Amino acid sequence: MRILVLGGDGYCGWPTALYLSNRDNEVAIADSFTRRTWDHELGAQTLTPIRPLTERLRAWERVTGRVIESFVGDILDYEFLSNVLQAFSPDAVVHFAEQRSAPYSMIDRQHAVFSQVNNVVGTLNVLFAIKEFQPDCHLVKLGTMGEYGTPNIDIEEGFIRIQHNGREDVLPYPKQPGSFYHLSKVHDSHNIHFCCKVWGIRATDLNQGVVYGTVTDETSLDEALVNRFDYDEVFGTALNRFCVQAAIEHPLTVYGKGGQTRGFLDIRDTVRCIELACLNPAVRGEFRVFNQFTEQFSVLELAEMVQVAGKRLGLDVGIDHIPDPRVEAEEHYYNAKHTKLAELGLTPHLLSESLLDSLVNIAMQNRDRVDQNLLMPRVNWRNSRNDRRSKPAGVAVAAD
Amino acid sequence: MRILVLGGDGYCGWPTALYLSNRDNEVAIADSFTRRTWDHELGAQTLTPIRPLTERLRAWERVTGRVIESFVGDILDYEFLSNVLQAFSPDAVVHFAEQRSAPYSMIDRQHAVFSQVNNVVGTLNVLFAIKEFQPDCHLVKLGTMGEYGTPNIDIEEGFIRIQHNGREDVLPYPKQPGSFYHLSKVHDSHNIHFCCKVWGIRATDLNQGVVYGTVTDETSLDEALVNRFDYDEVFGTALNRFCVQAAIEHPLTVYGKGGQTRGFLDIRDTVRCIELACLNPAVRGEFRVFNQFTEQFSVLELAEMVQVAGKRLGLDVGIDHIPDPRVEAEEHYYNAKHTKLAELGLTPHLLSESLLDSLVNIAMQNRDRVDQNLLMPRVNWRNSRNDRRSKPAGVAVAAD
Repeated sequence: MRILVLGGDGYCGWPTALYLSNRDNEVAIADSFTRRTWDHELGAQTLTPIRPLTERLRAWERVTGRVIESFVGDILDYEFLSNVLQAFSPDAVVHFAEQRSAPYSMIDRQHAVFSQVNNVVGTLNVLFAIKEFQPDCHLVKLGTMGEYGTPNIDIEEGFIRIQHNGREDVLPYPKQPGSFYHLSKVHDSHNIHFCCKVWGIRATDLNQGVVYGTVTDETSLDEALVNRFDYDEVFGTALNRFCVQAAIEHPLTVYGKGGQTRGFLDIRDTVRCIELACLNPAVRGEFRVFNQFTEQFSVLELAEMVQVAGKRLGLDVGIDHIPDPRVEAEEHYYNAKHTKLAELGLTPHLLSESLLDSLVNIAMQNRDRVDQNLLMPRVNWRNSRNDRRSKPAGVAVAAD
Repeated sequence: MRILVLGGDGYCGWPTALYLSNRDNEVAIADSFTRRTWDHELGAQTLTPIRPLTERLRAWERVTGRVIESFVGDILDYEFLSNVLQAFSPDAVVHFAEQRSAPYSMIDRQHAVFSQVNNVVGTLNVLFAIKEFQPDCHLVKLGTMGEYGTPNIDIEEGFIRIQHNGREDVLPYPKQPGSFYHLSKVHDSHNIHFCCKVWGIRATDLNQGVVYGTVTDETSLDEALVNRFDYDEVFGTALNRFCVQAAIEHPLTVYGKGGQTRGFLDIRDTVRCIELACLNPAVRGEFRVFNQFTEQFSVLELAEMVQVAGKRLGLDVGIDHIPDPRVEAEEHYYNAKHTKLAELGLTPHLLSESLLDSLVNIAMQNRDRVDQNLLMPRVNWRNSRNDRRSKPAGVAVAAD
């Protein structure tokens, strides 16, 4: 199968491209490296040193004999995107090429507008390009479990049957996203659904949970294939950040009570889910939604698991409940369905002691690269302007 | 009350500004005149000759002694918008300043992207400006009944109580919008709802039906106050377009079977609904949705009513069922609630013979301004590129 991975240089995109390439697909990556420039903007770096894409791809060919083609450009540039689709003629487009951080989208107006325009227009361009140049191609789009928010009823996979005043219908599941970023994904979902209906596009919207881990079978083949691992307050996901905090014996920063419950998955399951979606495409005109996660945890449960893992490794790990910089329920009902990918064959890597140990170990090995200034939240949802860069370097800061 | 009308030079904004001014409010208009440039782009003109905004405002002062302040600029320019909010300090912002045509948004990729960016970013800017400069101000935002689509259950006003697996919650009503324009309004609704939650913004989302009519008590005070009246396939609303077709004895163009049922209202009710929303503001943090229409009709029912009105006036009016350029159900269940504005005091102007006669009469008086090339649909939802301007002038064209 010919698979184009948009955003293939990123945290999920890179291991996905390698995995798909290793499973005998013809893979191409398109990326603008915007994600790398955000590191410069935020003064942050991935914990694990990563190589430029050209080096990564050279190493991949050297180690496996497999070639991944790369296209450098921004999908907001429709001419670029059109040329890529025509040059590569993909059977599936896997679309990771979005701004994916909730705090980044909440920094201020410019970042909110950027996040929504970047994500919404990028996805509109992908839809138009598929319609115009590759109409039978399957769009595999990364959404987020955060589109649903935390309703007081079970979360279904994209649609819900509603009985009302003696009638019934199956309708899109109501969305209550919790940041300008999460909102952008809701906008995308509505746009994609519409294009499936009017143009017969085939699409799978993968509402992914919070991803943890960094290593896959492929990224561990060579040092030059190492994946990024973000631990900063803006791009670091909860569990990864806790592991880094444990490694340097920094208290784990639990926002508020920590009862916030979310779906989580191992990055090795991310890559497999993408493969399963590609292998089992939506039919023409179908807009299909899968909830892509394997287990639910509350943030406090995760912190306690990391604390235990840290103890096993001889680390002194505390837990600090700090004021929640987000506006969200700190205790709530949460029961989200996630059976469709399992039905297609997903065998999950559940969160284990050994995985936690290995994550903390990776963090310990890279301890000298940890910048403590990046751990505490500086983006408060209640402010419309968060001056992240105004504090002098080297000074520890509390939550705004 | 101090009321800022964004888009106050347009079809709904202009009569709203006059009405609110006449009822002793301090009114200001902000407008970029983008709507007037779209006329040039489309080669269309309002049937009724309208004056430049400066002339309109001068006439209003001459006739009533009342002053409406005007700010010329685009709300996509945040500096402009910030300055307006600080200079005028409104108690309410009435937000009409969006691209409001479904066919316009479906012309091609550029128009789709423009419609969504223009509407979403404009509204984001309004939300940020209120938060930063006028946090207690009430946002009265024009949405559309088209956000809901045509579900097989009753349409509620913004939210629906859902029982599911033994639990229940009141959740945002599921949205199934039918064009890139309607999608932009759904995106807005989600963005506004979120800002109410995180920043305590007070907002009313008015999901308006299809507006008909052109004359209000205020616009009829002087010839220079005349409101626009669009009949072209892109900006003309169904009933207005039928009246113009009747006046020139052009067959009424019903798309498909004509069973498409929608909510409709008289423009005199539009202006009153806005007033009612302003007089009864949402509380801080509240996101409130009213369905703003007074009667439901199918498109074919409307056409038949116009046909009868035409006969009364001695006109020979046929009805043509032409292929539906839109992708939509041509027959469907439709029952939308609309009690909240009535509870606040709306006494509707229901569609009457005399109103239909007067609309057809206006069209007959302006018969020489009708361009027949603008009547037939040239924007087909099934195409991603519609070359509207490619046909030679003066040649009658069929639907694509």
